[in-house]
Amino acid sequence: MRTLEWKSDSCELVMIDQRRLPGSFELVTCRTAEETAEAIRNMTVRGAPAIGAAAAYGVALAACRAHAKDLGELRAELNQASALLRASRPTAVNLMWALDRMNALTAAGHPSAAALVERVVAEAAQIADEDVQTNLKLSEVGAELIEDGDTIIHHCNTGALAVVDWGTALGVIRRAHAQGKRIHVLVDETRPRLQGARLTAWELQQYGIPYEIISDNAAGYFLRTGKAQKVFFGADRVAANGDVANKVGSYMLALAAHANHVPVYSVFPSSTVDLTLANGDLIPIEERDEQEVLGLQMHGEPVTPQGAHARNPAFDVTPNSLLTALVTEKGLVYPPFRINLPRILRGSTQK
Amino acid sequence: MRTLEWKSDSCELVMIDQRRLPGSFELVTCRTAEETAEAIRNMTVRGAPAIGAAAAYGVALAACRAHAKDLGELRAELNQASALLRASRPTAVNLMWALDRMNALTAAGHPSAAALVERVVAEAAQIADEDVQTNLKLSEVGAELIEDGDTIIHHCNTGALAVVDWGTALGVIRRAHAQGKRIHVLVDETRPRLQGARLTAWELQQYGIPYEIISDNAAGYFLRTGKAQKVFFGADRVAANGDVANKVGSYMLALAAHANHVPVYSVFPSSTVDLTLANGDLIPIEERDEQEVLGLQMHGEPVTPQGAHARNPAFDVTPNSLLTALVTEKGLVYPPFRINLPRILRGSTQK
Repeated sequence: MRTLEWKSDSCELVMIDQRRLPGSFELVTCRTAEETAEAIRNMTVRGAPAIGAAAAYGVALAACRAHAKDLGELRAELNQASALLRASRPTAVNLMWALDRMNALTAAGHPSAAALVERVVAEAAQIADEDVQTNLKLSEVGAELIEDGDTIIHHCNTGALAVVDWGTALGVIRRAHAQGKRIHVLVDETRPRLQGARLTAWELQQYGIPYEIISDNAAGYFLRTGKAQKVFFGADRVAANGDVANKVGSYMLALAAHANHVPVYSVFPSSTVDLTLANGDLIPIEERDEQEVLGLQMHGEPVTPQGAHARNPAFDVTPNSLLTALVTEKGLVYPPFRINLPRILRGSTQK
Repeated sequence: MRTLEWKSDSCELVMIDQRRLPGSFELVTCRTAEETAEAIRNMTVRGAPAIGAAAAYGVALAACRAHAKDLGELRAELNQASALLRASRPTAVNLMWALDRMNALTAAGHPSAAALVERVVAEAAQIADEDVQTNLKLSEVGAELIEDGDTIIHHCNTGALAVVDWGTALGVIRRAHAQGKRIHVLVDETRPRLQGARLTAWELQQYGIPYEIISDNAAGYFLRTGKAQKVFFGADRVAANGDVANKVGSYMLALAAHANHVPVYSVFPSSTVDLTLANGDLIPIEERDEQEVLGLQMHGEPVTPQGAHARNPAFDVTPNSLLTALVTEKGLVYPPFRINLPRILRGSTQK
């Protein structure tokens, strides 16, 4: 099944509960925009493209359960739902991108409230379907970067669970594997929420791609001793100059790769690019609850002393100078990103 | 109490069980060199200076429980114990340094087996006492580097628990705190064994030094956004050129600090320097059991999928180019380390 599935009969959004994997495979059903916003906030669903699609479906839920008596009232209800969803997480811009699309549709001319409901539901489904197509395309684009025999360090989860289906950076690895290239993945466990150890490991196991989990701290060792040939991760928001905000730790990983002349690739759909921001320092970085850091157990006991506090930035910014290329469904983007990224997004061919 | 305490009446070595902290404070008693080697191997005791002193006491245990009938037999027993202890962990050179001292003593002339036993026990006690004095000295040396108001990122545990008493990098921080400087410590949790989240946090709480735990991944965020002014860590072995082998993750932390013009200090007793190795690439890096990475729990459930494997290098090498200065009991060492480190170890004044 997809990470997100729309039940048109009952007007429900069913999602895989990513907080419980790999221990148990559970589904969560959202019936309202509020429930969807909460599922995004508490990371039942995570991954920039997946939360974009989830937010679009959140508006669809608001549409098909609306109390509005006319088009004006419906628009007000949808805009309210959209605003609520927009506030659920701050960093991944796919959320805003999807909601902008839904808002534009809401604002357009419609013959009736019922017609708008239908269009909103169809638009959310289209965003989800496009996401899958986009992932397949960017995976094809990125797979050419991977050589037979490569050991790849991968950060966080960018597989099927991070999107509607297939994956971004992990999608590239899947595609290269399907092409018959022998690949070994060193899976950054990705503290604090361990998306690598939990989700990426689980996905790779299902795809039959050989992997080993490493503590995030160990990536530098493998890079400095020549044991890894590529670094791949996704993106939560990319500024106009190619600076990439992604899961915390991406920056240190990119630094270690760059210092050892190992190429670093960030893989994302073009909806992850925010051309309104000149550089990555302008990207808002979410700081999440300290319990994500403190809630760890070993041997059944809490790890940290009672009364301990933590800081928990969920993302960091990798400056464009550390990135070898960006992988999008529109093609590979090479430096200077400030020139080439807007160009490729406009659909012009890169020189 | 000290991390390690010698019970002369019963000829026993009592150590704080560092695997159980901070959940519970338990003591482990070693009665033989074999038990001591196992306690080093399984990290009941850890920290380069602490395992050096523990190994010396391990030889002392062999001495006072020896079955030897003469000096020759005793020497053979002690050398055997020493060889066993030497094999317990490969990276921290303080272990080898302490055992070399014990071996030299064993090989020297002694009037009787009983006299050698007495000398061996005294030598182990002297190594332990010297360690405390050395730590106090290097803390005084290093404290001048810390300014009032500094936020310091600290990796692993280098406090009282890592040594016989007081600490190295954390000893410097304690000394600066005692001087009245206001300090905030961002404590790297230090995966996989979480010595930061468990031990450093516990120590800082006792010393009344303000701190917050961060996932190791987050250090780059704080460094890149100007939130930290210094980085401090210890060392497990330092090559003649100043390359530092230390707890895995130190390298990535140093890279992130260096990239953001934040000074990086490695703090260690001179017994941590291995002048026989020209550079850090020659330092043997221990790879420990994968269960240290895989054995994590959240919400009472295992984190990784069944059948997952891991790689677990316990140390990495920070090249000297990333280090601002080295802090030893003999003084601060600045680049070029290849010249200045051997010079300061010989006791000559640095230019």
